[in-house]
Amino acid sequence: MIQPRTLKGFRDYLPDVMMPREQMMQTAREVFRSFGFAPIDTPVLEHLEILTGKGSDETDRQIYRFQDNGKRDVGMRFDLTVPLARFAAQHIGTLGTPFKRYHIAPVWRGENTQAGRYREFVQCDFDTIGTESELADIEAVAVINQLLAALGFDAFTISLNNRVILTGLLAGLGLADRTVPVLRSLDKLAKIGREKTQAEMVSAAEISDEQAAAVLRLADCTGTPEEIFAMLPDVTAGNEQAAQGIARLKSIYEGAVAAGVPTRRLKIDVSIARGLDYYTGVIFETTLDDLVEIGSVCSGGRYDNLAGLYTKQHLPGIGASLGLDRLVAAMETLNLLPKASTPAPVMIAYFDESHRDDYLKLATNLRSAGIGTEIYPEPKKLGPQLKYADQKGFTYAIIAGDNEWQANKVQVKALAAKESSDIEYTHDAPEALTKFLAAD
Amino acid sequence: MIQPRTLKGFRDYLPDVMMPREQMMQTAREVFRSFGFAPIDTPVLEHLEILTGKGSDETDRQIYRFQDNGKRDVGMRFDLTVPLARFAAQHIGTLGTPFKRYHIAPVWRGENTQAGRYREFVQCDFDTIGTESELADIEAVAVINQLLAALGFDAFTISLNNRVILTGLLAGLGLADRTVPVLRSLDKLAKIGREKTQAEMVSAAEISDEQAAAVLRLADCTGTPEEIFAMLPDVTAGNEQAAQGIARLKSIYEGAVAAGVPTRRLKIDVSIARGLDYYTGVIFETTLDDLVEIGSVCSGGRYDNLAGLYTKQHLPGIGASLGLDRLVAAMETLNLLPKASTPAPVMIAYFDESHRDDYLKLATNLRSAGIGTEIYPEPKKLGPQLKYADQKGFTYAIIAGDNEWQANKVQVKALAAKESSDIEYTHDAPEALTKFLAAD
Repeated sequence: MIQPRTLKGFRDYLPDVMMPREQMMQTAREVFRSFGFAPIDTPVLEHLEILTGKGSDETDRQIYRFQDNGKRDVGMRFDLTVPLARFAAQHIGTLGTPFKRYHIAPVWRGENTQAGRYREFVQCDFDTIGTESELADIEAVAVINQLLAALGFDAFTISLNNRVILTGLLAGLGLADRTVPVLRSLDKLAKIGREKTQAEMVSAAEISDEQAAAVLRLADCTGTPEEIFAMLPDVTAGNEQAAQGIARLKSIYEGAVAAGVPTRRLKIDVSIARGLDYYTGVIFETTLDDLVEIGSVCSGGRYDNLAGLYTKQHLPGIGASLGLDRLVAAMETLNLLPKASTPAPVMIAYFDESHRDDYLKLATNLRSAGIGTEIYPEPKKLGPQLKYADQKGFTYAIIAGDNEWQANKVQVKALAAKESSDIEYTHDAPEALTKFLAAD
Repeated sequence: MIQPRTLKGFRDYLPDVMMPREQMMQTAREVFRSFGFAPIDTPVLEHLEILTGKGSDETDRQIYRFQDNGKRDVGMRFDLTVPLARFAAQHIGTLGTPFKRYHIAPVWRGENTQAGRYREFVQCDFDTIGTESELADIEAVAVINQLLAALGFDAFTISLNNRVILTGLLAGLGLADRTVPVLRSLDKLAKIGREKTQAEMVSAAEISDEQAAAVLRLADCTGTPEEIFAMLPDVTAGNEQAAQGIARLKSIYEGAVAAGVPTRRLKIDVSIARGLDYYTGVIFETTLDDLVEIGSVCSGGRYDNLAGLYTKQHLPGIGASLGLDRLVAAMETLNLLPKASTPAPVMIAYFDESHRDDYLKLATNLRSAGIGTEIYPEPKKLGPQLKYADQKGFTYAIIAGDNEWQANKVQVKALAAKESSDIEYTHDAPEALTKFLAAD
């Protein structure tokens, strides 16, 4: 006998968790579609050179890779951005620009497992490719707001920054070539504090203490958006590129407000940098106000050139990625998930075998009226059937024996309230029952 | 520069194909849920011994397999049945029986590629585990009917058989131990014809010509369900086990009719066998009447014991698998897919940059009314914007310049009909516009 088990770092999704997870994916699809983002899908397996082309050493090590039967070096995708870059390079001639896509799919990383982190998880990405317009940036903020709100969150914060501000400041300090290491250090500010960040900047980016201090003065600008926008020109010392970056960030902020994103959910945070070195413009992170500790649940930004490794066509764009499985895991830990493990509200007890066809017709009628209905599969005593209904979390059980069928009615038991009602019903006139069941 | 390409046998899904594909998956989910089937998900990667435990040599060869960083032998799932068996063995204590699940997910097979066949494809399975009740069998037929109908098909045929009939007949002929090779040969009847099937039966199953002829006499029973049920007792020569199998098949057929499955879609076909040797009861195949050549698009049946390799618990069940990607590929080949490549019906032209915030507010208002809306991302001339709208397949373009905004109206262009209408609109009173756009 083989021991049934999953691989380390992998997990099964049972119905009680899979139902809300699936609902969340569907909600995300609906939000993306409402903004005109179209779905795509790409293979899980790619030529290894596609996947390793852009990655850092760290990412490369995490790729699940092997030789297939045809001796090709292949790998499982570790994110949805690299496949998008390959996809765009290959198909943009057919697709045209601007191109707006979303992609909801699992990715794999053979990283060391920590609490709540898995080696297989779903990413939920959206991107607008082929335009440098600020409107696309504004829309990305509106999508994130709508996404989290539709998923049922109210208290969350979208932090916005524009990398151009820091890039300009660094250029003004004569440090244009140090942007990446400075950004990497700055990204740790929230975690390791100001002092250590400054020390790391000096050592890792090889800049002077004064230069590091100037960078951190920028990161120190906190307050309301209005206050920050008032401070920034001073801190960036009149640098022209920084000024343009500030103007664009302000315009994006104002556009997001015009698009209906509540100001309480918007924060300007010039200290966030996002480690990935391909972001070149606006960047954002999103935290749940009551669960800040799980980190950003939706992050992204603007990049200059998506697919430079695969095509000469210049493809600027903007996008973000929702950490859907991270949200699911957090909700699971916090017992925020509903308890039901059936997607149908109604269970018909299989009470009297001679009425099998009546149960079948009743179920078909209820489903036709949009009411999900399960028939208990075996003609058993009522006790075990009702126990099953309770455990699964059905809303109603319908009980109909010979007496009920002869009297043209059925008994509806509201399971949580433990209340029973007799409702008129015949196969030809199910309306009284469907109305009753649909009332909730 | 790295050449952007997919692996042989793999494909990208562009929006025009991915949109209907995604819609089909969602339709399938809704049908499954309406019958009380709950979703689960399992890892793509499993311990290799789990995957190879039950497979045939042929299947084993097709598994994408490798050693992971922890030197574990792992493989990518090649179907959803083996993972279900492992899942059930592991979790059935928590889940309880009966357990009804669906699973919509990709699987991988490194087989030689043929036209329209890929090495990665989505399967769409549903199963009821832990009951031998005929009601579950009837329900499976009702699910298949509802599934295909909801996917937009009208002319299709669900062929039903019960393996017990043949098993009984073979037992009567003293051939109980030859069931599997006889079934394998019989499964080829439609493809290779009667004569070759008989010859193969004789050679592969090592039975006599007379015994093969008796088996084929059973397969010869064709006609209406009523005619076939009248013929079968004769052909099975009063064998008791066969008689039980016939009675159950008849009861399932009648139950399916009671559940509302149109008789024109139901066929009794005692010649179908389904190669897999774990089916032990009712089996079904589904063909599209106008596309018989693509083979069965939804097949399955009843099995005695799902998870015998992983647990001592006896788990009978019934299920079927919809070949969703095979349907998508067929519809693509036949040009049956809609042509749009945007999921939003409305595009707002970005006509006048000074009204950016008005466009943003307009779009938010339309989305709030449930109308998917994209703003063209760049303030460009109208020509290219309308060309983009046409190519993507938007239904409406909304055009509003300074004149329109001052007159509290917008111009709505119905793109296919090339008709324009001026519709009243202000941000505070969008109803005239939302009603107009939602009218279709």
